[in-house]
Amino acid sequence: MARIPVLARCPLTGPFASATAVQPAAAGEWLASIDAGWEIAGNANGGYLLAMATRALAGATGRPDPVTVTAHYLSPGRPGSVRIVTQILKEGKRFATGTATMFSGTRPVLAVLGTLGDLSQAEGPELIEGAPPELPAPERCVRVQPAGAFPPPFMGQVDLRLHPDDAAFATGRQSGQPLMRGWFRFPGAEPVDSVALLCAVDAFPPTAFNARLPIAWTPTVELTAHIRARPAPGWLRCRFATRFVSAGFLEEDGEVWDSTGRLVGQSRQLALVPRG
Amino acid sequence: MARIPVLARCPLTGPFASATAVQPAAAGEWLASIDAGWEIAGNANGGYLLAMATRALAGATGRPDPVTVTAHYLSPGRPGSVRIVTQILKEGKRFATGTATMFSGTRPVLAVLGTLGDLSQAEGPELIEGAPPELPAPERCVRVQPAGAFPPPFMGQVDLRLHPDDAAFATGRQSGQPLMRGWFRFPGAEPVDSVALLCAVDAFPPTAFNARLPIAWTPTVELTAHIRARPAPGWLRCRFATRFVSAGFLEEDGEVWDSTGRLVGQSRQLALVPRG
Repeated sequence: MARIPVLARCPLTGPFASATAVQPAAAGEWLASIDAGWEIAGNANGGYLLAMATRALAGATGRPDPVTVTAHYLSPGRPGSVRIVTQILKEGKRFATGTATMFSGTRPVLAVLGTLGDLSQAEGPELIEGAPPELPAPERCVRVQPAGAFPPPFMGQVDLRLHPDDAAFATGRQSGQPLMRGWFRFPGAEPVDSVALLCAVDAFPPTAFNARLPIAWTPTVELTAHIRARPAPGWLRCRFATRFVSAGFLEEDGEVWDSTGRLVGQSRQLALVPRG
Repeated sequence: MARIPVLARCPLTGPFASATAVQPAAAGEWLASIDAGWEIAGNANGGYLLAMATRALAGATGRPDPVTVTAHYLSPGRPGSVRIVTQILKEGKRFATGTATMFSGTRPVLAVLGTLGDLSQAEGPELIEGAPPELPAPERCVRVQPAGAFPPPFMGQVDLRLHPDDAAFATGRQSGQPLMRGWFRFPGAEPVDSVALLCAVDAFPPTAFNARLPIAWTPTVELTAHIRARPAPGWLRCRFATRFVSAGFLEEDGEVWDSTGRLVGQSRQLALVPRG
């Protein structure tokens, strides 16, 4: 159904909000830019791209919050202008569902299928089997800062503090556990909204870095994030773990908890396991 | 890119293969039928619908196996004719990615984004932190058979044997653990291919049935399945668990193991938690 898109809601300001901003160009078409400085091994971070595409879906549907979004990564995201084509499949009372496909020229970069809604009100029975990861205070964790190719430039856009046990891979002493725990925020404490959580769930070094396996890099095939609630201000506690490396694939499951101890997001990605 | 679709590969025969068969109608368009008898509370089972849409994607891409597929459920699937519109977004050497949208008349029922490939060859380093669920032999488990509205007619299309500890909900003695373990096969031991695994991951009673919470039914918003390998013949061992019921949602994570003890699929769905 054709409609004039409204300006994507992006109430926050800061480097991440700017880097993910989208502008309406035509019905179901948005213009945006993959900014330089968000790349890992020459390709823009997958969570950053998913957040950008989701801002277009939020604009197209008029719904501010991703509830469940899935991205399939089709080709590398290089810095430069991109076009995002959105299609609304259903607009319901509570949710709207649509697709967003990002193109660099005619090359598809990313395909997203998402259901969005309004997470400002949320209630229901609670059962929480799990807890935020235990972490030393951020200043006692290991800060990941860019240094040329590795750690990559992207690490300058986020403020990651790794659990010391999970950071030892950097000095060649893998823990042997495919686990990555740490704190997440943006530099300068730029507010993290529900869309920015999509960046948090793909910001940490791969869990495979801590496995004692001949694995070098694990490109993401697909990433799905479930957002339960808008995060409270402050540091986010994150935990990523892999249980199954097999048949050339691995999954990486993530949990993000806000400063009030509330689970705000879950993620799972399927990644390729090339031999190292 | 327009192309004449080839007949969807469906090498197996049997009730499930017939019930999920799709016929090419035009470029990027497929006809199929939601068969009566596959419903739960009047709506066709979500995994059954996902398998049907994935057969259309397999036909459109010429790739036999789902690698990662995500379905968003838009409206109830009622028995009758449906039309599936497929769009290929990328065709690579190893994988192809596309969307499939199922319509009943003009009403969208299901939207799928999937990456497909060929899983006949799979290799790589292995790390398995987990094991198939311990289950009594199928004949010592609890068979779920349809009986009017509950258990629903769908249970006649699959042969489920629940772990006795997880089946006690049926007599009002919930275990208190949102867990559901059991065996899966088709009646008459119809072979289970990689597409049929999409039915297996959504075939069991909801984990919420075993939670001591005021929850009656949990409609699926979104279901993602990762298929690692084609299953060997024989019973499949399945395990579904929920860790987080919060903010009106719950996730249900599934694992499917084949008769050789190999992990063949993982699933996660996001479901709504209406008050019971």
